[in-house]
Amino acid sequence: MSPSSSAEDSSSPAVITCKAAVAWGAGEPLVMEEVELSPPHPHEIRIKVFSSSLCRSDISAWESQLLQAIFPRIFGHEASGIVESIGEGVTEFREGDHVLTVFTGECRTCRQCTSGKSNVCQVLGLERRGVMHSDQKTRFSIKGKPVFHYCAVSSFSEYTVVHSGCAVKVSPNAPLEKICLLSCGVAAGLGAAWNVAAVSEGSTVVIFGLGTVGLSVAQGARLKGASRIIGVDTNPDKCEKAKAFGVTEFINPNVILLNFLSQVIKRITDGGADYSFECIGDTGMITTALQSCCDGWGLTVTLGVPKVKPEMSAHYGLLLTGRTLKGTIFGGWKPKSDLPSLVDMYMNKEIEVDKFITHDLPFEDINTAFSLMREGKCLRCVIHMPR
Amino acid sequence: MSPSSSAEDSSSPAVITCKAAVAWGAGEPLVMEEVELSPPHPHEIRIKVFSSSLCRSDISAWESQLLQAIFPRIFGHEASGIVESIGEGVTEFREGDHVLTVFTGECRTCRQCTSGKSNVCQVLGLERRGVMHSDQKTRFSIKGKPVFHYCAVSSFSEYTVVHSGCAVKVSPNAPLEKICLLSCGVAAGLGAAWNVAAVSEGSTVVIFGLGTVGLSVAQGARLKGASRIIGVDTNPDKCEKAKAFGVTEFINPNVILLNFLSQVIKRITDGGADYSFECIGDTGMITTALQSCCDGWGLTVTLGVPKVKPEMSAHYGLLLTGRTLKGTIFGGWKPKSDLPSLVDMYMNKEIEVDKFITHDLPFEDINTAFSLMREGKCLRCVIHMPR
Ligand SMILES: [Zn+2]
Ligand SMILES: [Zn+2]
Ligand SMILES: [Zn+2]
Ligand SMILES: [Zn+2]
Repeated sequence: MSPSSSAEDSSSPAVITCKAAVAWGAGEPLVMEEVELSPPHPHEIRIKVFSSSLCRSDISAWESQLLQAIFPRIFGHEASGIVESIGEGVTEFREGDHVLTVFTGECRTCRQCTSGKSNVCQVLGLERRGVMHSDQKTRFSIKGKPVFHYCAVSSFSEYTVVHSGCAVKVSPNAPLEKICLLSCGVAAGLGAAWNVAAVSEGSTVVIFGLGTVGLSVAQGARLKGASRIIGVDTNPDKCEKAKAFGVTEFINPNVILLNFLSQVIKRITDGGADYSFECIGDTGMITTALQSCCDGWGLTVTLGVPKVKPEMSAHYGLLLTGRTLKGTIFGGWKPKSDLPSLVDMYMNKEIEVDKFITHDLPFEDINTAFSLMREGKCLRCVIHMPR
Repeated sequence: MSPSSSAEDSSSPAVITCKAAVAWGAGEPLVMEEVELSPPHPHEIRIKVFSSSLCRSDISAWESQLLQAIFPRIFGHEASGIVESIGEGVTEFREGDHVLTVFTGECRTCRQCTSGKSNVCQVLGLERRGVMHSDQKTRFSIKGKPVFHYCAVSSFSEYTVVHSGCAVKVSPNAPLEKICLLSCGVAAGLGAAWNVAAVSEGSTVVIFGLGTVGLSVAQGARLKGASRIIGVDTNPDKCEKAKAFGVTEFINPNVILLNFLSQVIKRITDGGADYSFECIGDTGMITTALQSCCDGWGLTVTLGVPKVKPEMSAHYGLLLTGRTLKGTIFGGWKPKSDLPSLVDMYMNKEIEVDKFITHDLPFEDINTAFSLMREGKCLRCVIHMPR
């Protein structure tokens, strides 16, 4: 019950100077910089980042058309690593533990965490101001000037500091360069299909947006026995690629007039799909997704974070006739409670992760990853940190 | 399998001439007219209306700011009666049966009806064009000119014709002048709390709009053990009245600035209610209802039919943090399957119906009922047809 004395140990961690990819302004190429990283504060851990895959929301925040522009900043939130040191009061981790970072933490004590029905932690939930949860300050700096965090993770750095509630210990046997994908996109899609929608056998599913998240929804739906999985994407290259993840039919809305998209889907599904998933981050597409699912029990799940218009709208008649619209963050997974078993599923070959990795890049080529994702030429680029 | 010969029987029903309250134009007082009512067509029944209570949606359609104006028209859809004659092919009813009409029918054969998870019949669902489902024509006329139906029920008439899928046989012991309320508003509210939201014990509920539907939600929530039932209504008279139905706290948004309404609710509920119900028919209030329920598992159920703006909107962040928006018609009840047991519950005093009846009026005073409801001075006016 007394404060740990670790901060006074001779072994107490010091400031680290390391390389980080710093974004100095919206949409500007990242610059490799020497940054100072403070020791972990109480209840925080410092991690040597092993791998970090680039997620669409890193790009959205970096382009920051909608979100508040916070620079200089270190992006990256889908990552794996090894604990380098621990702050006061941390009992759950020790040096050398293999971990996944999580962009939406789990404090295990708030009303949400203890409800047994939510993963929206009130204490360690999505951090949008570029600082750490505990003191609203940064741990990174360059010559004394703060460098902001992203989602309280900031994994595009050789080392980072996160709250101990924003990391999960995983089996040391799991390949860190693969399982980083479970830290965000792949898990989010699986969870949306399993936890949020509870896709049922023989059902019909429509997925808007066939990036990693959408294709993970497809994988999740396929594993639950959905009989039709209709994928919608404006990128014609996705047609072939999506089949590997369970998509059975492909619609390119560029060749169907967008206004007719939901009508086409309703036609081919005899009145609408059982489930529709919005994985683009387009509030207009949420409306289309609602229109594309059936009366009576049609369920639309929204996963995307809108890049332009933050308000979605829908005609009340879509609701009156029995549709449900449900949002989710991280597929409803409670990261600390649930991620280790997802890693186990991967190790047991029950879920597919490797297939999402289209590119492996060394840390210094991180801007290539940004370009590939902006141009829709990758699913996941894994960025390998220097060993 | 051969067509019934009943149409040729000497006993085959003839045209009836009877009194009906006809609306000749939007918002114009109803006029008592002699109307001709054809015999029931195949699969239809003709009913002597016993009682018909006035529902808010009769008023909305009559005022028709939003809905298509269809006149002359006979309103009324929350009714009880006695079968006067049956059309060809009707096996489920016979002359003298006591029935409730239903504004959203159940064909028992379509994809929705057979799904086991929907009450949104594709064949006999909400009829909006003022005609009968089977032939898109009217059964009422005045001197040969058609008079339109409302929701394929039109109970503000001594007699009416409905599809046999739009009526439910009920116990002859049940008082027709009371149970007519179960044909729409009271059942809709109970169903929203029980079937759609599945309100749980000890939970916190917010209800926007304390008319019959909203107060039925309150009753339903109370019967499921909700510990706090917060009622929101701009009519200060509702404060006292609502307590009788289970409302534990009352908020008048006229005294709280409307923009702060959801903030006040979030404050007093420690982050938001478990369930919120929009029973006003105001798409703006759907947004407030979503804002007023909690992260993680907050569920908003929409019951109202908007009178002005048909599009609802919401910030995606409300969804991202785990809220669900669910619409319903008739509280999710399948009318033929479920209404008889609701009538039984009433007979066993398990649910309250009589308390909603604030006025009993003879048919000729029907315009008084319209005035009372427009002015917010009633819950249900039961209109008693001539015996
Ligand atoms: Zn992500
Ligand atoms: Zn928490
Ligand atoms: Zn009604
Ligand atoms: Zn049906």
